[in-house]
Amino acid sequence: MPELRKDPITGTWVIISEERKKRPKYYQIVVDKDISKPENCPFCPGNEAMTPPETYALRPDHSKANGPGWSLRVIPNKFPALRIEGELRKSGEGFYDKISGIGAHEVIIETPQHPGERVDIDAGQVKNTMLAAKLRILDLKKDTRFKYIMVFKNFGPTAGATLSHSHTQLIALPVVPLRVQEEIEGARTHFQMKERCIFCDIIQYEREADRRLLTENEHFMVLAPYAPRFSFELALYPKRHEPAFENTSEAELESLGAILSATLAKVGRALSRPDYNLIIHNAPCSNNVGDYYHWHIEFMPVLARVAGFEWGTGFYINPISPEESIQVLKAV
Amino acid sequence: MPELRKDPITGTWVIISEERKKRPKYYQIVVDKDISKPENCPFCPGNEAMTPPETYALRPDHSKANGPGWSLRVIPNKFPALRIEGELRKSGEGFYDKISGIGAHEVIIETPQHPGERVDIDAGQVKNTMLAAKLRILDLKKDTRFKYIMVFKNFGPTAGATLSHSHTQLIALPVVPLRVQEEIEGARTHFQMKERCIFCDIIQYEREADRRLLTENEHFMVLAPYAPRFSFELALYPKRHEPAFENTSEAELESLGAILSATLAKVGRALSRPDYNLIIHNAPCSNNVGDYYHWHIEFMPVLARVAGFEWGTGFYINPISPEESIQVLKAV
Repeated sequence: MPELRKDPITGTWVIISEERKKRPKYYQIVVDKDISKPENCPFCPGNEAMTPPETYALRPDHSKANGPGWSLRVIPNKFPALRIEGELRKSGEGFYDKISGIGAHEVIIETPQHPGERVDIDAGQVKNTMLAAKLRILDLKKDTRFKYIMVFKNFGPTAGATLSHSHTQLIALPVVPLRVQEEIEGARTHFQMKERCIFCDIIQYEREADRRLLTENEHFMVLAPYAPRFSFELALYPKRHEPAFENTSEAELESLGAILSATLAKVGRALSRPDYNLIIHNAPCSNNVGDYYHWHIEFMPVLARVAGFEWGTGFYINPISPEESIQVLKAV
Repeated sequence: MPELRKDPITGTWVIISEERKKRPKYYQIVVDKDISKPENCPFCPGNEAMTPPETYALRPDHSKANGPGWSLRVIPNKFPALRIEGELRKSGEGFYDKISGIGAHEVIIETPQHPGERVDIDAGQVKNTMLAAKLRILDLKKDTRFKYIMVFKNFGPTAGATLSHSHTQLIALPVVPLRVQEEIEGARTHFQMKERCIFCDIIQYEREADRRLLTENEHFMVLAPYAPRFSFELALYPKRHEPAFENTSEAELESLGAILSATLAKVGRALSRPDYNLIIHNAPCSNNVGDYYHWHIEFMPVLARVAGFEWGTGFYINPISPEESIQVLKAV
């Protein structure tokens, strides 16, 4: 059973999940098959038996569950960081705190196509992925043990992806993580002073300043944050004030697919298709942050290594200003 | 001039330092010489002209500054993240905050020996490195523009080291970083409740529990933290309650050199000489944390990649418990 342990000084939560040791490419494990080949890839059509049964799929041909014919497929992670079975149990050791590792860990397989050349995900696929994330969140939120649902994509080995077949992950957690709490707290402080959402303020200011704005469409805006931790870090904001990603409408999802796939393609051309992490910052399941929190997406290409200074301080050194990075991207 | 910019939501500081783009191995720059060879290594004896003039050196043969003959040498970083010249100036853009990038960035070259085979740093060299860090901190603290001095070592390319020649870095900052503030805040909360230092409590509890203790000597203890973010993460605590690293005595530095070099050797044997980050967690320059803060060292081998989930949540997944990692290390 995995455990959630809390650092007694900083309050940071850690999942101790020995289950994960079994997964391919864990540093001590020798992988006996080349998982970069489609015939060994658990995310390829025809290999559905290599994964747990699907929780959702798009099957335009009305094919049967857990066989080929799908255009997108959601499955529980075979090597979950947290387990869905069991009771939420808080306990301790001496003055330390822990919680049993209850949670869900699912994988959205975005496309049946195995990457040969790295292919761009098209607008339709991004839209379907976001729709699948929305539907899975709505379903998982019914389980009141879950306090936060995190959706993220690791693309490429240096971004932490174990499998090359394009996928997005979803983890439901029994606590609201510290970084999420900090972001919410920051937004709340701004709201208490100004009675305005700080994200709405940023959207308005950045449009006027036009120094860090990359692109926008009817429903979304993509910009470089004022204080980016990483080179070419980007943020995607919905223009409509909305705390919860899962309340995104059908028309907005369409618009999101278009702007996100265009942005990924642009970054890919400018930076020779870097590995990247993409994270949906969403409201907690309780959704009690209505006026001041605003969901958004964070995008970080992996161009350099985080080193001792960053770990020690939570303070980042970035060799390119956001104003210059936007110029580079716009010039593509 | 570098800039310190503050994220308006989370309060995270970022150094935008375009200077750093010029350094070797920055992702866009082609390195014209093989810096892994001693003749091209700016940290090798005979190449002193390739670095800025030294701020400190150990020269057992009483040789002249900025030539060969040293056993340890401290120099300003040639590609500093922050600059020592100039005034501390706070300003803004719209509702964003920034500070001019005042600070110091120095490098302690720990040994004249260029790594052929990766060599272990011996107890004497570790002691001398820690002594140099102490003396440089005492000197830099005289500059009242500096609020925090960070000492850290990146070992190996996956830990962020640009040069293979063994070195430790020191950055003086005009603000106390958020992660340091969080740690201090956590320690203060514990002290307010219990009137005891949480680090002293951990030392006592871990000795009694003896589940995560790796080794100890007269002045120090090395253990795996209860909630380690990374596999084989270790913490080194001085047994004497002391907030400021620079108050470490001569006898303690001797003891620190012995336990730290033995620990590095042990981890090297157990994990095939991994790359690592080592960070001194020290009190701020003001040192107004006397009763509740306790300096310590954090050691993190680089065995896996930080991925989207960790970035989004500040929540870490660790596939090995600290109890098991200590058993693995003790068995070496």
